[in-house]
Amino acid sequence: MSTGFKHLFRFFSDEERRNIHEASKQVLATTGLAVRNARARELLVAHGCTLDASTERVYLPEQLVEACRASFEGRYTFTAREPEFDVNVPGEAPCIVTASSASRILDFSTGEQRDATSSDIASIARLINELPGYDVFSISTLAADASRELFSVDRLYPALKYCQKPIRTTTMGMPDLLSVLEFGYALAGGREAYGERPFINHHYCPVISPLTFDVDSTEAVTYVLEQGYPVYATICPNGGMTSPMSMLGTLIVGNAEFLAINCYFQMVRPGTPVLYAYLPNIAYMRTGTYTSGSVECAMLEMAHTEMAEFYGVPSGGYIGQTDSHAPDYQAGQEVSMSATGAALTGASLLNIGGLLDSLVSFDYAKAVLDSEVGMNLKRLARGMEYGAEGLERNLREIDEVGPGGIFMMEDQTLENTPTICYYSDLASRDIRSAWEAAGSKPADVRAREQAQKILSAPARPLLSEETEDAIRELFPNLVSGEPAR
Amino acid sequence: MSTGFKHLFRFFSDEERRNIHEASKQVLATTGLAVRNARARELLVAHGCTLDASTERVYLPEQLVEACRASFEGRYTFTAREPEFDVNVPGEAPCIVTASSASRILDFSTGEQRDATSSDIASIARLINELPGYDVFSISTLAADASRELFSVDRLYPALKYCQKPIRTTTMGMPDLLSVLEFGYALAGGREAYGERPFINHHYCPVISPLTFDVDSTEAVTYVLEQGYPVYATICPNGGMTSPMSMLGTLIVGNAEFLAINCYFQMVRPGTPVLYAYLPNIAYMRTGTYTSGSVECAMLEMAHTEMAEFYGVPSGGYIGQTDSHAPDYQAGQEVSMSATGAALTGASLLNIGGLLDSLVSFDYAKAVLDSEVGMNLKRLARGMEYGAEGLERNLREIDEVGPGGIFMMEDQTLENTPTICYYSDLASRDIRSAWEAAGSKPADVRAREQAQKILSAPARPLLSEETEDAIRELFPNLVSGEPAR
Repeated sequence: MSTGFKHLFRFFSDEERRNIHEASKQVLATTGLAVRNARARELLVAHGCTLDASTERVYLPEQLVEACRASFEGRYTFTAREPEFDVNVPGEAPCIVTASSASRILDFSTGEQRDATSSDIASIARLINELPGYDVFSISTLAADASRELFSVDRLYPALKYCQKPIRTTTMGMPDLLSVLEFGYALAGGREAYGERPFINHHYCPVISPLTFDVDSTEAVTYVLEQGYPVYATICPNGGMTSPMSMLGTLIVGNAEFLAINCYFQMVRPGTPVLYAYLPNIAYMRTGTYTSGSVECAMLEMAHTEMAEFYGVPSGGYIGQTDSHAPDYQAGQEVSMSATGAALTGASLLNIGGLLDSLVSFDYAKAVLDSEVGMNLKRLARGMEYGAEGLERNLREIDEVGPGGIFMMEDQTLENTPTICYYSDLASRDIRSAWEAAGSKPADVRAREQAQKILSAPARPLLSEETEDAIRELFPNLVSGEPAR
Repeated sequence: MSTGFKHLFRFFSDEERRNIHEASKQVLATTGLAVRNARARELLVAHGCTLDASTERVYLPEQLVEACRASFEGRYTFTAREPEFDVNVPGEAPCIVTASSASRILDFSTGEQRDATSSDIASIARLINELPGYDVFSISTLAADASRELFSVDRLYPALKYCQKPIRTTTMGMPDLLSVLEFGYALAGGREAYGERPFINHHYCPVISPLTFDVDSTEAVTYVLEQGYPVYATICPNGGMTSPMSMLGTLIVGNAEFLAINCYFQMVRPGTPVLYAYLPNIAYMRTGTYTSGSVECAMLEMAHTEMAEFYGVPSGGYIGQTDSHAPDYQAGQEVSMSATGAALTGASLLNIGGLLDSLVSFDYAKAVLDSEVGMNLKRLARGMEYGAEGLERNLREIDEVGPGGIFMMEDQTLENTPTICYYSDLASRDIRSAWEAAGSKPADVRAREQAQKILSAPARPLLSEETEDAIRELFPNLVSGEPAR
């Protein structure tokens, strides 16, 4: 996020950021990583790391980290099926992405929490496709009806069937990843065609905090990188549990983990685009719950963004989450404080949309409301329209109108009115009596109505009959991919 | 707001800020001000301004503006009756102040909008006194039952009777101001005693945008300054109406108005503390309403804050307002986006609390919810606790725990848990089932219950019987000052 921003907010001085970088390298060199994936251990050792085979502990020399950093490519593209929907960061920041993989959903009709299914994903895909705040659809929920062998294809299919925006997803183990890629090849009309436009945007958390590369996700990212497909990793330190109960200590663990996984990416494939993605937290000891809506979480996001800027790479992550169980004031507050904080610190990518209950439940109304936050952030990013011409023109207009005058009929009023304000279809900016006459509906009720309107229009699948046939032949047990309502 | 912040967010470069300052001076020198108050005109002319008597237009030479700027005192103190409640900005930023002077209130029992009364002010004073997010009580509503001759005393009395925090107020015309001061003298035990601790914090909008000093408020600020009592002024440009339909043009008009009124303050009393206070807006042409919750309004607040930093004076104002009619997601979003934006740009003072309907209505639940925003901003201002010791200690702890370990029983966890997180009594950070078991209450319902709890405790007036007697003798027609419930 940079358009129109002259200086980003910072908690840290340059020297402090350098020290945090040095401390992170020290952690990797002297504390090391536990690397549970054998191939990754081999690759790390081949690049000059020391291995303690008995503990699977790998030590990364500081020079190796610096050498890998030198090939960091500070840009990331989310690829869609059609190029016009591609999104580049940081160039097109702020990039608003849904938050993903909630296991539960608030049923549209009853409002009750229940397991999410592939039909829900089709409905959500339709909604995200229409909402202007979103740039990327990271599949919002799991699918309880997914078959074991098509765990991720059963999520990906309804998403691609109803959303043109780039789709971000993850997988569970190699067979699952391979079937997802087979699915992609079938959709593209072959592996070669897919290679030219690899429209499945892979995402993993291969680092289990603290400082551990797992088996499965590490294998998946290695494979995806070797194929040259887009992938990035998120780090998730949790102060008091998987990192020190200290803002600084949690930042150091997370930053060391960012360096570790992204240096590993460079070893697998030098020049891999780097996105500094995070989901940090401080454990909330009062209830023992995961509190992604806390201000401390927002502050850590900002701190990681500052470190990303130090490394010259775009950043973002699970910004704008809430612990609230309803799309209420608390939700609006938590989403907006962290989203605004991260944006003004320079985050390019915000996984804002749709979740309640600390990432547990998807809610349609919340997704509509969060799209508004996205639109407001996009307006903010346009900045203050400074320019020498503007200065002269304004001085002239101010002088012509003079003290006590009115600007309503001036040239700029006519010219700028359509563009200067973000005109929302959801926010109530009317007088109270008009709002009361329309039923005194709070924002979440209006949002639910907007979702209803979008979802009650005829569903238009994006895949041709031919493509559907090809897919069904390959995956006879695939879910219907149709919205429930 | 500076604690723990190494660099503030900025839309503008230093050069752009200098240009905006120069443009603002040019407006004052060549477009000039309309000055409706005769004494102010005289004083301005005595200090070297040119007057066009036929239009009451006054032109401020650039050197005069610079000379006055040289005596700007970049600090402001809100004075309470007891020194322990005083608040200094920027030293004690973020200073959270209620938003004030709503004519209407949402009745606590019925939820219906009605005119606010002096009894409401007593109840609100009790609430603000208890809510930890607030530092200053700017009297939230008007009082429909106030007598004509005691228009402002009837508001001030219930506020002082039930709130120990500094009280900010305004007045309507000289007789009203003089009765407010008489009231203050009586409370202090005499004019001399009051002079030692002038605990009524005066606030006015003497500049009617564009570029006009009015008659009454200008007279009031002049008198208050001459007495040496605390006062500051807010500027309120409204793009498309009283300033150009341009972010930059509106900023220039507002900044010129800030310079004009604060230079005037220095002419009346050199060395007067300066607070750059603002309530800017862009007219919302779709509905014609005043939209203080828009992102454009937030951006203008940030821009004015940047100019305040250029002048080396603390800043703030009507940040964190909402156009919403209920304390819903929209309200949480609008309050939080602008409050976070302003805080990260360096605003010290935020008139956040309690209003809905674009400043028209006070709501108890909203005041409780906004206190939470204040508490989160205070946590944010504490920053990231960087320190060389912290770095060493964290590195040691990370190394001791090692990859795959857990930090739950480490020294820092035990030591920092009580202080690192803001533990809210209002935010739901529980698991969903616990929230459902407690009645599935959204944040506004919980906030209303918290207000109810505070207001149903026995009311404890802060004024002694002796003081009450003295006041009643002076003002026999004074309102009861008692809460209605």
